[in-house]
Amino acid sequence: MTSPVIPLPKGFSFATAAAGFKHPGRDDLALVVSDVPAVAAGVFTKNLFQAAPVLVAKKRLSTSGGHARAILVNSGQANACTGQGGIDDCRETLSLVAKATDLSADEILPASTGVIGARLKLDKWKAAVPALAAGLGQTSPVAVAKAIMTTDSFPKIAWGTLTTDAGEVRVMGMAKGAGMIAPNMATMIGLLLCDAKVGSLWWQEAVAAAADRSFNSITVDGDTSTNDCVLALANGASEVAIDSAEGRQALLGVMVEVCQALAYMLIQDAEGGTKILRVKVQGAASHAEAELAARAVGNSPLVKTAFFGRDANWGRIVAALGRSGASFAPEDVSVRIGGVAVFQNGMPVAEDLDALLAPHMRRGEISVDVELGDGPGRYLLLASDLTYDYIKINADYRT
Amino acid sequence: MTSPVIPLPKGFSFATAAAGFKHPGRDDLALVVSDVPAVAAGVFTKNLFQAAPVLVAKKRLSTSGGHARAILVNSGQANACTGQGGIDDCRETLSLVAKATDLSADEILPASTGVIGARLKLDKWKAAVPALAAGLGQTSPVAVAKAIMTTDSFPKIAWGTLTTDAGEVRVMGMAKGAGMIAPNMATMIGLLLCDAKVGSLWWQEAVAAAADRSFNSITVDGDTSTNDCVLALANGASEVAIDSAEGRQALLGVMVEVCQALAYMLIQDAEGGTKILRVKVQGAASHAEAELAARAVGNSPLVKTAFFGRDANWGRIVAALGRSGASFAPEDVSVRIGGVAVFQNGMPVAEDLDALLAPHMRRGEISVDVELGDGPGRYLLLASDLTYDYIKINADYRT
Repeated sequence: MTSPVIPLPKGFSFATAAAGFKHPGRDDLALVVSDVPAVAAGVFTKNLFQAAPVLVAKKRLSTSGGHARAILVNSGQANACTGQGGIDDCRETLSLVAKATDLSADEILPASTGVIGARLKLDKWKAAVPALAAGLGQTSPVAVAKAIMTTDSFPKIAWGTLTTDAGEVRVMGMAKGAGMIAPNMATMIGLLLCDAKVGSLWWQEAVAAAADRSFNSITVDGDTSTNDCVLALANGASEVAIDSAEGRQALLGVMVEVCQALAYMLIQDAEGGTKILRVKVQGAASHAEAELAARAVGNSPLVKTAFFGRDANWGRIVAALGRSGASFAPEDVSVRIGGVAVFQNGMPVAEDLDALLAPHMRRGEISVDVELGDGPGRYLLLASDLTYDYIKINADYRT
Repeated sequence: MTSPVIPLPKGFSFATAAAGFKHPGRDDLALVVSDVPAVAAGVFTKNLFQAAPVLVAKKRLSTSGGHARAILVNSGQANACTGQGGIDDCRETLSLVAKATDLSADEILPASTGVIGARLKLDKWKAAVPALAAGLGQTSPVAVAKAIMTTDSFPKIAWGTLTTDAGEVRVMGMAKGAGMIAPNMATMIGLLLCDAKVGSLWWQEAVAAAADRSFNSITVDGDTSTNDCVLALANGASEVAIDSAEGRQALLGVMVEVCQALAYMLIQDAEGGTKILRVKVQGAASHAEAELAARAVGNSPLVKTAFFGRDANWGRIVAALGRSGASFAPEDVSVRIGGVAVFQNGMPVAEDLDALLAPHMRRGEISVDVELGDGPGRYLLLASDLTYDYIKINADYRT
């Protein structure tokens, strides 16, 4: 069953099933299979506590020379902090799927998201995998995007196409995540599918670059999880090879667009969030310092609560910049909120701008533009605000 | 008017006045004067945006060779992000006080706390300074601790004594602060008074060390302000010289106790806070890594909301440790909450401990003990929780 509205990358099939890991009757298993071995890449959490599926997927990518045919995702159980037993469990799930399909276990990349610390419920896996295998090709990628959700309030899917002289290639992405760690959940997963013929080394580089300019440039609460990963398959089914420098640049552009669309959806769905802050820092001494400055602003509880309260509180923004670790001269700093200059050359703009800013502060998306000087460093970070509902969602006892 | 319950350091006088900078009729000016020139030291915010009084106080300390006679504090106006005009205003307030007393302007260290960005209301200063000067010696240090409050809900004062062969010396401290930046306020101020005879270089070192082990080891929201400072005078009025290594060590011990008592009060008064978390990290590779780990836990919005929700959520604690930047082997990590082992050797303790932990989670102070390995690094951080009231206080429009 293909979706009429989404230009599907060729040569991929999808399946979902309801194993009942957390919510009975809800799809919580998803399988994506390429007809042929695909070039595969992954980007993984830098957290020192890495979940079993992260460790297994990394190992498979490195031993396969960057190839795989399938991605297997479950929601409801993170299989993190589960030791060697968790790794064995993860491998067992891959074997179960291999036995029920024409895949071999080492062609499948695993990903898990859900409660940390508990061992996988293998009995539920055994009961559900036959239905998963039998349903392959019977469902759309939207069902996959739904099955991988945890506290997400909507499925996240995005796509793009690239037309070359040799024909068209398609890129599709799916993601889940609502807090950097949702209540006890662990957390962001992104899947990227493409039907171009690409080289293995370039694919890894391109996936990492696209993730860096999208998923790594958003923040809900500054917390990162044990399970974050982006898994990406390019299967060549379009029979269009992308091997020129221009072609690669263009395909990377589409990948970035798809990933940025997904990242935007993650912030739209941020736990308790009511606003998206576009924090853009320019003129920093370096890219790294621009990132430090943007993250200090986007992660500051005081800045985030001010925006929730519709308060254009530049004082909190400059205080966050000042402690960010970025180096600059205070008198070179300017800040605009919603395009309105509120702070220039290290001092507040003289007039009382609250009336002028009021309509901007009521918007769902607000730009915060920071100039630190005349250096080359720039960075764009999407951030959510900090609200009563964030506290409510995250202070509730985990059940 | 001396306080019968507080052993006052000798040779200091106190005054307060109501200038009406923010709240009419509330004391918002405080002056502390030593009878004789005192050895003076300061510890200041590392924020790149430094308020005018911070810049002026630093300069006076460096040009005076570490001596001063008085400290002048106002609340209600931070005099931050006010440019050269703000520095001129600050100097003008010192001149006003000098004219009304026997002090010279360059013997007075200034500190300000309040709304960022606005210029000082010099007309109100001119009207209030005569009353301030006339009242010198008429009030107690408790009145000073009250006058420097902004969003604080109670005044913060602590004291200690040291008995030596040559006699007794006294240390007294006052502090204010409730969020690292209170709603638009800016923020922590600490005053330390001592009647020992001490050397100037040692005093600066000792004040910095005491601040490091107290005010720098607490966190409400990870934000630091443009005005944070600790100012310290030692006037020798006890005629007891502290010049032996043991004596210095003992006096430093009293200073640390006084500063830790004040720091504890700051966290007790944290904006919206309902609990104090004692995050102790041991076994890190270094002191710096222990601090990274403790701060990642103490600043994590997910950890802080979990404790507010009485949820002993070790998953969020280990996820914060994993992204902290501290290096460790996950299998060496253990976590105890309220003294109960919840995570050992990189895995959750098998039993369901929620029933056992429930009474601990209802307490106002909860210990979180983290072992990262067998390294020498250790760090203790006091942190507040993150609550609806924090959002309420900080999302309210500044007025």
